Amino acid sequence: MSEAEELGNWTRSHFSAEIPKKDGSSVTLMGWIRAIRKVGKLTFLQLADREGFVQVIFKGVSPQIQKKLDILQRESVIAVKGKVKINKTAPNGVEIIPSELKILNLAETPLPLEVVTQKTPADLPTRLNSRFMDLRKPEIAAIFRIKDMVVTAAREYWDKNKYIEIHSPKLMSAPSESGSNVFEVKYFKNTAYLAQSPQFYKQIMMAAGFDRVYEIAPIFRAEKHHTYRHVTEFTSMDFEISFISGLQDIMTEVENLIVYIYKHIQKNAKTELKILGKKITPPSTPFPRVTMTEAFKMIGEKFNDNDLSSDQEKLFSEACKKKFNHEFVFLTEFPWSTRPFYHMKKDATTTCSADLLYNGLEIATLAQREHRFKILMAQLKDKNMSPKALEYYLNSFKHGSPPHGGAGLGLDRIVMKMLGLENIREAVLFPRDPERLWP
Amino acid sequence: MSEAEELGNWTRSHFSAEIPKKDGSSVTLMGWIRAIRKVGKLTFLQLADREGFVQVIFKGVSPQIQKKLDILQRESVIAVKGKVKINKTAPNGVEIIPSELKILNLAETPLPLEVVTQKTPADLPTRLNSRFMDLRKPEIAAIFRIKDMVVTAAREYWDKNKYIEIHSPKLMSAPSESGSNVFEVKYFKNTAYLAQSPQFYKQIMMAAGFDRVYEIAPIFRAEKHHTYRHVTEFTSMDFEISFISGLQDIMTEVENLIVYIYKHIQKNAKTELKILGKKITPPSTPFPRVTMTEAFKMIGEKFNDNDLSSDQEKLFSEACKKKFNHEFVFLTEFPWSTRPFYHMKKDATTTCSADLLYNGLEIATLAQREHRFKILMAQLKDKNMSPKALEYYLNSFKHGSPPHGGAGLGLDRIVMKMLGLENIREAVLFPRDPERLWP
Repeated sequence: MSEAEELGNWTRSHFSAEIPKKDGSSVTLMGWIRAIRKVGKLTFLQLADREGFVQVIFKGVSPQIQKKLDILQRESVIAVKGKVKINKTAPNGVEIIPSELKILNLAETPLPLEVVTQKTPADLPTRLNSRFMDLRKPEIAAIFRIKDMVVTAAREYWDKNKYIEIHSPKLMSAPSESGSNVFEVKYFKNTAYLAQSPQFYKQIMMAAGFDRVYEIAPIFRAEKHHTYRHVTEFTSMDFEISFISGLQDIMTEVENLIVYIYKHIQKNAKTELKILGKKITPPSTPFPRVTMTEAFKMIGEKFNDNDLSSDQEKLFSEACKKKFNHEFVFLTEFPWSTRPFYHMKKDATTTCSADLLYNGLEIATLAQREHRFKILMAQLKDKNMSPKALEYYLNSFKHGSPPHGGAGLGLDRIVMKMLGLENIREAVLFPRDPERLWP
Repeated sequence: MSEAEELGNWTRSHFSAEIPKKDGSSVTLMGWIRAIRKVGKLTFLQLADREGFVQVIFKGVSPQIQKKLDILQRESVIAVKGKVKINKTAPNGVEIIPSELKILNLAETPLPLEVVTQKTPADLPTRLNSRFMDLRKPEIAAIFRIKDMVVTAAREYWDKNKYIEIHSPKLMSAPSESGSNVFEVKYFKNTAYLAQSPQFYKQIMMAAGFDRVYEIAPIFRAEKHHTYRHVTEFTSMDFEISFISGLQDIMTEVENLIVYIYKHIQKNAKTELKILGKKITPPSTPFPRVTMTEAFKMIGEKFNDNDLSSDQEKLFSEACKKKFNHEFVFLTEFPWSTRPFYHMKKDATTTCSADLLYNGLEIATLAQREHRFKILMAQLKDKNMSPKALEYYLNSFKHGSPPHGGAGLGLDRIVMKMLGLENIREAVLFPRDPERLWP
C-alpha cells in the first residue's frame, strides 16, 4: 500500500463548510486529518480543509481501509468518499459515513508545530519557522483572507474611480527615498537599488497624462530596527492623482478609500472576523485633522520643527483618542526639515503633506508634490541633493507636469491595526527583517 | 503673470471624450496643449487629456488671456472654462468657446520627443529615454490601459474561482530557480537573492491548506541576453491549485484564464483596440497539445531529450500554424533533463509539465509538482542540488503536502503578443535590461 495514492478521477464535491445538510447525500472531501480518535472499533477523523472541518466516522470497515487507518498520522492529506449523516451535536450539523478512503500524502511525526492552538502557544519565531503549519490554523489563515479582501477592496475602489493600475520597476539606478536605508543590488557591472517606494514613477505617470494611477507592490527598506512595526519588505498601496487643488483632495481620497475597505471587509469577511473574534465599524468622515503645531500643543510640548518622537507619538495618540474618539487622525503641515524634496511647500518652513495615523501607528504618508520644475530644483538644492542621479525623474517636470499629489499606504500595517495584531510580522505571510530571510 | 497658476477651486467637469454634445453647456477642462495654430485674430488650441482631445477656439479675448496665449508652448498644462459649441466637422463633434484660461505649468522648449507620431518615428531607446512624453501618445497609452485590463481580468477570474491572493517575499535566502541568472542583494551582513519566481511560496501555501492561490508581482532574472523578448524585471502572474489529478487540470485552468482575459479585453477595450487598429478574438478551447516527441517529428528532426532551440521553436510555430490554425499551443512532456527538480516525473525521462506558446513565444510554464517528500529529495539529489539552502521549502513536504500544480504566466509577453508588439519593451512601462536601469 502506497503512502501517497493518486487522486485519479476523484474531484472534490464540497468544501467541508458547504456540505449539504441532507441525510444520504454523496460527497467527496479532501483535506488534512486534524485529529484522530479511536474508540473500540470506531475511528473518528476530523477532516479539515480551507473552509472548516467535518467529522468522518469509520465503523466496521474493510481490511483494506483498516490498514490505511492503522498507519494514518495527524496532518496527513486524505480524500474520502461517503454519505452525509445529520448530527445536530456535530459542530457543523453533519458527519460523514465513509465508503472509500485515499491517503494522498502521509505526514511524518512528530509535527514541528501543533495546528490546534495549545494552552501555551508557540512563540512567533517558532511559528514563522514552520509557517506552512502555522497557516493551517483557522485564526491565522483568517488574517490573510482578510488581507486579500483589503487588497480586493482597494482595487475595486480605484477601478470604479477611473484609476489605471501600473507596474513600476523595483530595480532603480538611484535610491528613491533616501540613501540611508536602501538595499544595493549587484546589477551586471553596475549597482542597482531596490525601490523604497514607487514615488518617482507615480509622478512620471502624472507627467505622462495618466491622470490617476495606483500600484500595489512590494517595496524594500533596509531598516536596521528590530521593532514590532518594521519589516524590510512590505506591500505598499500607492496612488497618485492629477489636477488637484491641494492636499485636501488627497486626504478626501484616502478617507474614501479607507471607508470603502472597511465596508467591504464588514460585508465579506463575516466568517473570518468571527473566527478572530473581531468587530469592525467603518470610520466616520471626515477624519480628524491636526497640524503639527497643534499636535505639540495637545501633548503640552513646544513645537521645534521636528517630527514627533516615538514617545511623543504615543502621548499624541492618547490625546487624540480622548479628544476625537476616532481611530484615525491626519497629522498635517509637517515641517519642511522632515520631508523629502519633492513635497510641495506651504511656506518657508511647512509642507503640504500629512501622515495618517491609525490607532497611533503611521499607515500612510500623503502630499501634494511640487510640480514646478524651477521650484523643485531649488528644493532639491536646499536638501543638498545632486540632480544628476535623478535626471530621469526631474526631466519629466520640464515639459508639462500637472499639479498632482498622492499617498502611499502600508497594507501590512493596515491589516495589523484593523485586526488588532501586536506585531506586523503577524500580518505578513513570510516576513523579512535583519535577522530573518526565510522561510 | 505666473507660469504656473493655481487650480484654486476649479475642478474638471469632463474628460474631453465625455463633453456633452449640447450647445452652450458649461465645461471645465484640463489637459495638455497638443497643438497651437494662429490664424489672424484666432487661436486654435488642441487640448488633450487621457480620454482624447478637443479644439478650443480663442477669438477676441481679453488682454489678460491674450498675454497667456502669447507665451503658451506646446505640451503646457492648462485649464479652461468655457461653453460647448456643436461642430460636426470637429473630430469629436464639438469645440469649446473659452471664457477663462489658466496656465498650470508652462512647458519648456524644445520638446525631447514629439507626441504626435512623425513620418519618421523616434527609435525605441529615444522614446524610452523620454517615456513620460512617449506615454502621452494615445497609441502608447492604449497598450498600458489594455495591460491594466488584462490584470483586472485575471484577478476577476481568480476571485470568482475562489483563489486567495498572496504576497510572497522577493528577498530570498537562496535562488528560487537556478543560481545562474539570479541577482544578489547586500542584505545587512549577508547576501539575499531576488526572487526569480514565487514558485516555492506558492507551493508552501498549498502545504498550508490555502487550496488555490494567485500572485501578480515583479520577478527578477539576471538575463544577459539583449533580445526582443527578455527583460531583467517583469510581472509574473502565478497561480497554484491543490488536489489536482494531473497536468490536465492545470492546462484547463490556463485555458479558462486566457479565454476569460480575451473576452474581458474584447468587451472593455474597444476604444484602445480601435486606436491600435487591432482586433482580437477569444481562442477556441481546448488549445492544441503537442508532446515534445511529436514536436520534433513535426519539424522533421530527431528528439534528443533537449528543449527546442530558438530556431527549432520558429519552425515548430510555423508547423503548428499550418496544422492547427490556432494562436496557442501547449507543448507537453518536457524531458526531465530540461526541467527543475520540483516538477513531477511522468517516467524516468519525462515530466508532467508543459509550456504554453502564444504565436511562437513561450508565455507560460505549467507543471504538476512533486508533492511526495522522499521522491522530491531523490529528484533534488539527481539534479546535484544541496538540500541545505532549500530546507525551509523542503520541510513543507514532510507533514502533509497535497497533490498540486500551477503555472507562471508572463504578463508582459501576453500583452506583447496580444497586441502584436515587436519588442517586449513596448509592453513594459519602464523596461530593465543589462544596459537600461532608467528612467
